[in-house]
Amino acid sequence: MPTISNKADSMPASPIRKLVPFAEAAKKRGTKIYHLNIGQPDIETPQSFLNAVKTADIKVLEYSHSAGNESYRTKLCNYYKEYTININPNDIIITCGGSEAIEIALMTCFNAGDEIIIPEPFYANYNGFSKAADVIVKPIRSSIETGFALPPIADFEKVITPKTKGIIICNPGNPTGYLYTKEELLALRDLVKKYDLFLLSDEVYREFCYDGKEYISVMHLDGIEENVVLLDSISKRYSACGARIGALISKNKTVMSAALKFAQARLSPPSYGQIGAEAALDTPKSYFEDVKTEYIARRNFVVEALNKMEGVFCPKPSGAFYCIAKLPIDNADKFCQWLLEEFNYNHQTVMLAPATGFYSTPNAGTNEVRIAYVLNLNDLKNAMECLQQALNIYPGKTN
Amino acid sequence: MPTISNKADSMPASPIRKLVPFAEAAKKRGTKIYHLNIGQPDIETPQSFLNAVKTADIKVLEYSHSAGNESYRTKLCNYYKEYTININPNDIIITCGGSEAIEIALMTCFNAGDEIIIPEPFYANYNGFSKAADVIVKPIRSSIETGFALPPIADFEKVITPKTKGIIICNPGNPTGYLYTKEELLALRDLVKKYDLFLLSDEVYREFCYDGKEYISVMHLDGIEENVVLLDSISKRYSACGARIGALISKNKTVMSAALKFAQARLSPPSYGQIGAEAALDTPKSYFEDVKTEYIARRNFVVEALNKMEGVFCPKPSGAFYCIAKLPIDNADKFCQWLLEEFNYNHQTVMLAPATGFYSTPNAGTNEVRIAYVLNLNDLKNAMECLQQALNIYPGKTN
Repeated sequence: MPTISNKADSMPASPIRKLVPFAEAAKKRGTKIYHLNIGQPDIETPQSFLNAVKTADIKVLEYSHSAGNESYRTKLCNYYKEYTININPNDIIITCGGSEAIEIALMTCFNAGDEIIIPEPFYANYNGFSKAADVIVKPIRSSIETGFALPPIADFEKVITPKTKGIIICNPGNPTGYLYTKEELLALRDLVKKYDLFLLSDEVYREFCYDGKEYISVMHLDGIEENVVLLDSISKRYSACGARIGALISKNKTVMSAALKFAQARLSPPSYGQIGAEAALDTPKSYFEDVKTEYIARRNFVVEALNKMEGVFCPKPSGAFYCIAKLPIDNADKFCQWLLEEFNYNHQTVMLAPATGFYSTPNAGTNEVRIAYVLNLNDLKNAMECLQQALNIYPGKTN
Repeated sequence: MPTISNKADSMPASPIRKLVPFAEAAKKRGTKIYHLNIGQPDIETPQSFLNAVKTADIKVLEYSHSAGNESYRTKLCNYYKEYTININPNDIIITCGGSEAIEIALMTCFNAGDEIIIPEPFYANYNGFSKAADVIVKPIRSSIETGFALPPIADFEKVITPKTKGIIICNPGNPTGYLYTKEELLALRDLVKKYDLFLLSDEVYREFCYDGKEYISVMHLDGIEENVVLLDSISKRYSACGARIGALISKNKTVMSAALKFAQARLSPPSYGQIGAEAALDTPKSYFEDVKTEYIARRNFVVEALNKMEGVFCPKPSGAFYCIAKLPIDNADKFCQWLLEEFNYNHQTVMLAPATGFYSTPNAGTNEVRIAYVLNLNDLKNAMECLQQALNIYPGKTN
């Protein structure tokens, strides 16, 4: 039997998926599970999106342009313009989800063995995509005490080597919910300029910024236009995760023409998703206002409930729909498994994501969990009650 | 400005796309172009597929399972059973087109620097996917004189080194239309067994086998179940190229569990495409019979017309919807460009794919073109008339 590749062998398994068999067993026992473990929103996809797909007049479902339909890319420029991101259709490649944008960006910008700096905790799949592209992840720690603000620039400089080729950030952040300030992004800009690095920025949660705080894109940063690659997706924006429509965006023409060769090899992004996404650009502002109001209410409830629990600390995030909480527990992996395997409160339990999966440094985040507030307020209330009860009796409690 | 990766820099551009600007210019001059250059069929997508998408009751367009919807994979097993391919849903990962199946298979089975043997001419994007996965392509020549039959096993053995990790074939073949015989596949099986290689087989054209010839899958070969990875796609089967639905299939559990980690990192395949593809499994047999009848008529016409032209030789393919013709010309790249740039016959011309792009060996196929018979008979008649007229006056004619 031939052996699989070393890359495949060492490819990290998703930290959340390890818990899936325990969740399935719990369900079989009749336990209701509140899923706060994944970023699958319960928000309805806009009617504009769904109707466009329903009414599309298709006879032959053809390949689209490898960079995505030109009509979609053209209209998308107007969308970005509203965020004062000024691009033209050739600066955009439509991808199969944000995932493919990350994959193509890594292959385009990084040689095998090159290093990418990522503030941790970070979106766990950056690990897998880096592994697939043979890129070495160099994590630098942000801290729950500062709400996961950008680590000091000195910390970045400490890990910069001749192999460092770029930085990836997620803003607003998954899993932290942190929204980078103008000062932080200007500091990053200076760093990127100083060392001539690529700055990859995953900004798929830009619609979800709260408390009047300003969303600043890496595309707004003067003087590093050739260094910046924006990674985007409609999955969260329109609650259309299954559409698999994302985008890779850059003003760097060398990057775009190389990225297009990868895009051409795989022929085209999904046609139906593009039809929906193009139509969804006309989604009324009120849709987003309603969604935002809902998320703010959920966030306020969850963060308050968490901080009321003894020994629990949860900074209040300003964006996305996640928060990270520090719990009075020995080990988040064990605790999250225990919640599914041994605990129930009135035949209910809660599924959380152990934060360890979002850190690349071994033993980091062992007493933290990520909570996605993607359920309605009533479910969140029940979920928080479960968590409180669980913490009361968890055998590995530390205070 | 940071530099792009060596991989991106040396990523091969699609050979056909080089001609696109010339085609666009020709169109602007009012020349009608018969597109025989790409495998985009004009056949209508089955109503079962299109209706399922139209009537799908979706409120939240969610992620699917990373391996694809279980209902789809379960039903797909019945489809394969009709081809006496016996698999279960866990042997299948639904991918974003056949392209992603190839990408994941290469990353799963091959280390950087490993070698893959491919009979040439071959599907040009195997080059790009191999480059992306840092896999070295070792071409071995098949010949137009034998209709592109499998090269002798001795030719495979000549290029086998300690770095050889596998072989990829396409059956029925793109770009050759060749359908491998039982004897050829049994010989391949023995080779694969002897050297313990992976055998990747791209069988996306299995619906298109002609003249009563038997389609044999690598999944039918006894004794190499752990070596075989089947790469599939619905793009051609249902004329649904834009759906981006393919599959990676293997009985090798180590391969499947590693491949699933790559699939999990990118979250899920497209939802709409899966809905359509699942419904299309109920497409009546008459649909395929009609399509086959149509392709046979087209093939017969094109191959006969080509062989009637002076100095032209085109073996009659038994599968897919391509043929390769040897033309009395100095250089296929120049000729195909000339057809678009300088030639027209009654304001019409024909776009062909130079076969050079399907060979990895330099200077191979310089007097060959690939013709995709994806237009109706009347258009094909006009296209062949254009080609005949072009050959009459082409300045680089060799006889």
